[in-house]
Amino acid sequence: MRYKALLPGFALTIITITSGSWAAQQSNEPIQVIAPVTNINPAMVELGKKLFFDPRLSKSGFISCNSCHNLSLGGTDNIKTSIGHNWNQGPINAPTVLNASLILAQFWDGRAKNLKAQAGGPIANPGEMASTHELAIEVLQSIPGYVTEYQQIFGNDKINIDDVTSAIAEFEKTLVTPNSRFDKWLMGDNEAINDTELAGYKLFKETGCTGCHNGPAVGGTSYQKMGLVAPYQTDNKAQGRFDVTGNESDRLVFKVPSLRNIELTYPYFHDGGAATLREAVDTMGRIQLGKQFTDAENIKIVAFLKTLTGDQPAFNLPILPPSSDKTPQPMPF
Amino acid sequence: MRYKALLPGFALTIITITSGSWAAQQSNEPIQVIAPVTNINPAMVELGKKLFFDPRLSKSGFISCNSCHNLSLGGTDNIKTSIGHNWNQGPINAPTVLNASLILAQFWDGRAKNLKAQAGGPIANPGEMASTHELAIEVLQSIPGYVTEYQQIFGNDKINIDDVTSAIAEFEKTLVTPNSRFDKWLMGDNEAINDTELAGYKLFKETGCTGCHNGPAVGGTSYQKMGLVAPYQTDNKAQGRFDVTGNESDRLVFKVPSLRNIELTYPYFHDGGAATLREAVDTMGRIQLGKQFTDAENIKIVAFLKTLTGDQPAFNLPILPPSSDKTPQPMPF
Repeated sequence: MRYKALLPGFALTIITITSGSWAAQQSNEPIQVIAPVTNINPAMVELGKKLFFDPRLSKSGFISCNSCHNLSLGGTDNIKTSIGHNWNQGPINAPTVLNASLILAQFWDGRAKNLKAQAGGPIANPGEMASTHELAIEVLQSIPGYVTEYQQIFGNDKINIDDVTSAIAEFEKTLVTPNSRFDKWLMGDNEAINDTELAGYKLFKETGCTGCHNGPAVGGTSYQKMGLVAPYQTDNKAQGRFDVTGNESDRLVFKVPSLRNIELTYPYFHDGGAATLREAVDTMGRIQLGKQFTDAENIKIVAFLKTLTGDQPAFNLPILPPSSDKTPQPMPF
Repeated sequence: MRYKALLPGFALTIITITSGSWAAQQSNEPIQVIAPVTNINPAMVELGKKLFFDPRLSKSGFISCNSCHNLSLGGTDNIKTSIGHNWNQGPINAPTVLNASLILAQFWDGRAKNLKAQAGGPIANPGEMASTHELAIEVLQSIPGYVTEYQQIFGNDKINIDDVTSAIAEFEKTLVTPNSRFDKWLMGDNEAINDTELAGYKLFKETGCTGCHNGPAVGGTSYQKMGLVAPYQTDNKAQGRFDVTGNESDRLVFKVPSLRNIELTYPYFHDGGAATLREAVDTMGRIQLGKQFTDAENIKIVAFLKTLTGDQPAFNLPILPPSSDKTPQPMPF
């Protein structure tokens, strides 16, 4: 930990290196380091990566997973609610796919229990990719490059949606973002974050933000009501967990989002209603914690949040296998 | 050259290595090898690559250059005519950006004299990216990561559209696709293409296809009338060079497209009217050359055309610098 003692006329910085191990330091904090991914199937990751970038999984031939979970843009689309087939306005803000493997369930309302269950949803959603699982499989089965790759991984040449979503999920497991400055600090590098950022983190903890935003994903460990202390004003129709369970107590209860890479995943909240981190921090303070952050406090917390940006996906742009004469034609219009 | 003499009972393959240099062999053929790109500005390429992938150059924040010139898909979108802002149906098939630096002018009607002149068009086209140059520059100027990179390249921090399109063009210059099997054959590797493919190439030359499809891009060296011998049937409204010059003799005169990577850039023609190479070869034979190819001839020519697929772009998916609180909001709806 670093302590700065300000005396009249000069500044003295005393740096004390914690004698304990990195692991020991981590265990004292509500936020944990993101570990690099292990235990994945590399061939399945390569197939899943291609599928993630392939717009032929959509009816139009234009929209891929990467359209709304753009890995050049923090795994999201940076618009309030997404654009789907026929320029349909989506009902909710696209959550980032980065670190999605670290959180308790998928979608804002948690209706998919894991990445694999999520991956099939948008393909067949008429307002998103607007295909069907049957058509998507027919398309993939008609592409010789995919059939060969599939055969090598799954041992047969009859592609099915279960394996397709497994492959996409396997790729998505690799989309963790270790080595953020904050993680370096957690692991004992006291120079990794500056005094303002550290003060922001302390404030983040002391005010109670870590009550929900904790764990390696800095969130994604629980569902919480949006507007715990004061109601959240929005025109968005989403009712969160209520839409899944039908329980009145689940109304406006959403999955707590990860704050990893939050600098990249604007706009914020399930309705994309907060354009900036400054606005998001202010709103969260007021409606979740009953706390009006001062400008100075807001600046510190935002500075801390920006230390959560980790290593972004680093891989070659996938080159997709070409369609064949038998491939069903896209139907964009 | 390879000659295969078939005798009863066994096959004898005689391979004669041409004694002349690679250059000598090339000079005898109407198609030339694609040279790897040289003489580029690497920093400008990196900036241009980011801009090419950045949907913030569009009004919606959703459409980038790569949306319709998808480098995972042969530099095109593989749909008949492109999808633009608000799901606008584009008037014409998106030409590939691969090897576009090798051709005489840009757009099907050649209205842009070079890559730089082309790059500014879609950004401000209401049916494509639907932004304006002024708004696009305001967006880029608000993104600190771009300002820093721009400053390092251009020596000042006032971004302008001229430099932006220069950077995109500089990146596009790198999108050449050398090392196709056909180029290896041109350079003297007789094993690079098989007998069917070689027969297809001979037929391609003898029938007169190389009259238009010649040079390193196998096209892109001239404008020609679509329907020289027999009229081309289409509902597409595009009138080609006539739309640029107003000369009656330019009606339905289009730029001859490159056939490089043609296996990847379906559907074919300015209206995307041919879904398959088989259909495209058949139509071209009939309406441009007055020749009805037999099935056997068609198969050979298609086999040859598939040898024109070269090295696809190989680079890490670009990670884009985040917007700031001052960045104008996207306007998707």
